[in-house]
Amino acid sequence: MKTLASIGEFPFIEAIAKLALASRSRGVVVGIGDDAACLRLQRDAVVTVDTVVEGVHFRREWLSPHQLGRRALRAALSDLSACGAVPCFALLALTLKPDAPLADARGFVSALIGEGRKQGLALVGGNVSAGPVFSATLTLVGQRGRRFLRRDTARAGDAIYVTGPLGGASAGVALLKAGELQGPLQNAFRLPPLRVAAGLELGRIAGVGAVIDVSDGLVQDLSHVCKAAHVSAEIDVESIPLPPALRRKASAQSRRRGSIDPHAFALFGGDDYELLFTLRSPGRRSKAVLDALERAGCKARPIGRIVPETRVPVCAAADGTALTGGFSHFGKRR
Amino acid sequence: MKTLASIGEFPFIEAIAKLALASRSRGVVVGIGDDAACLRLQRDAVVTVDTVVEGVHFRREWLSPHQLGRRALRAALSDLSACGAVPCFALLALTLKPDAPLADARGFVSALIGEGRKQGLALVGGNVSAGPVFSATLTLVGQRGRRFLRRDTARAGDAIYVTGPLGGASAGVALLKAGELQGPLQNAFRLPPLRVAAGLELGRIAGVGAVIDVSDGLVQDLSHVCKAAHVSAEIDVESIPLPPALRRKASAQSRRRGSIDPHAFALFGGDDYELLFTLRSPGRRSKAVLDALERAGCKARPIGRIVPETRVPVCAAADGTALTGGFSHFGKRR
Repeated sequence: MKTLASIGEFPFIEAIAKLALASRSRGVVVGIGDDAACLRLQRDAVVTVDTVVEGVHFRREWLSPHQLGRRALRAALSDLSACGAVPCFALLALTLKPDAPLADARGFVSALIGEGRKQGLALVGGNVSAGPVFSATLTLVGQRGRRFLRRDTARAGDAIYVTGPLGGASAGVALLKAGELQGPLQNAFRLPPLRVAAGLELGRIAGVGAVIDVSDGLVQDLSHVCKAAHVSAEIDVESIPLPPALRRKASAQSRRRGSIDPHAFALFGGDDYELLFTLRSPGRRSKAVLDALERAGCKARPIGRIVPETRVPVCAAADGTALTGGFSHFGKRR
Repeated sequence: MKTLASIGEFPFIEAIAKLALASRSRGVVVGIGDDAACLRLQRDAVVTVDTVVEGVHFRREWLSPHQLGRRALRAALSDLSACGAVPCFALLALTLKPDAPLADARGFVSALIGEGRKQGLALVGGNVSAGPVFSATLTLVGQRGRRFLRRDTARAGDAIYVTGPLGGASAGVALLKAGELQGPLQNAFRLPPLRVAAGLELGRIAGVGAVIDVSDGLVQDLSHVCKAAHVSAEIDVESIPLPPALRRKASAQSRRRGSIDPHAFALFGGDDYELLFTLRSPGRRSKAVLDALERAGCKARPIGRIVPETRVPVCAAADGTALTGGFSHFGKRR
């Protein structure tokens, strides 16, 4: 079996460069193969970095290298979508075990490049290093859309929306941890939704306030929005859209042995990668916004409202129940 | 002792954001604290990523967190310098052990931010993740200088120059590995030179051909230059500038027990972070170029010439001895 140690660093980089050739785009003045990439943008640059680490964000048996490549790209892209940016360029810093199969590394990179190309991203640079576990840090460079969507601009009175069902991916992780490798919830974890078009659309809609992607759990990410603007939030828990498979799983389980609460996954689970946004004067705007987002490929739903700042908790259910929790690094491992 | 696990991910990110506040600069439209940063550039963006991994690029006992922060910044910056770019923004993706002391993580980040600020870099974003070892991936965003200095533009007849002494850092690594922790060569490894001004100056000088930073060893990096332009190189080995401490060490060792060849470190060692460049028609230009670079803070020296492509080797000494070797990932560990 060919490994990275057997072929060496530079032949591997050359192989990546060949895979990336197909993703060259107009703004690439100098791409892979020099000390840095030279990139032409028409508007402000929007830049984000995101890391996945084996054993922290996923276990090897949960994802094929191809699935991991697509997932890593979509997870990172979610941050650009949440800012309403147009995806342009990607740089990939890979840390690989020297005895890793070359085919796995190539499969990961090839899937990541392919998924990126579909979203308008050209791979223009990166770094390859040895390390004790697989880890990939993806830098994405976009350009500002109609406007840059911030997360600190919520106001009391705004309605809160999400662009799709929540809780599926974290329920999938629970099943994966229990050894159930196949199913729609596991696939929700494996392949996050694409919200590039939705983010661009939100940038065009008057009255959109704060936008954030839901990656660490609805309550936790909504708490970031609230803290940034010194407001609080009330969530209508029953109105949070849930994936049908999660509802089915919950009712099947409740018939068998006690109940699991699908809303707990939706509120506190992570890895959803839907967008959360707030909307001023929702009464007269809501339908037009939902229609525009449907044309952008997602079914957005109202789930609550921004209220004046209360002391504790930042987020509460409509009946006043405190809501706290979510994914935090250094707290738990996968 | 406070650890990352005891304070949690988000308070740590807030602490970084506070440290970074001092480095805010004019082009930062939206900095740390949103899903992505929004950055304003006047010219083409020049983007690079660089990773350091504990146990691969360094051992913990070789560098304090503060030294590691400065070193990581300078190593990454070297790639922007080699393109003649103006440093503008940085994003830091950190992977940390949950039981790592908080003071170490803060020391690293604080030194990195401070060193970056001196070079015009504002920290505008990043990512924090748990992981099995310390690892940091730095994304630097610059803007194109007078011109973007490529590595694939060497031509037969060009003279080859380096901007400073080579071999000190790799000799320092050899000493560190042997348990000698203090000394000027060890410090050459710890604190790479700054060549931002030299890179900008090279972009202004007519006749400068290819530019690359010497990070994997002179012969290996010069081989990249040669392969990219289908040329070969001859090195006048005796003319390679060596750090005085390396000459002293070599002659002291040769008196005691056999000889070590300081040129081997200069040719094949890595971590120098000097710039290598080629110059057309050097006879009439050399003095002006060396003077300009001296004003930019470095003593450049001619070390050989680009020749028409030979088959093997790409690099040779003036007497025809083949020169091959250098640092490659997946080959060796520190």
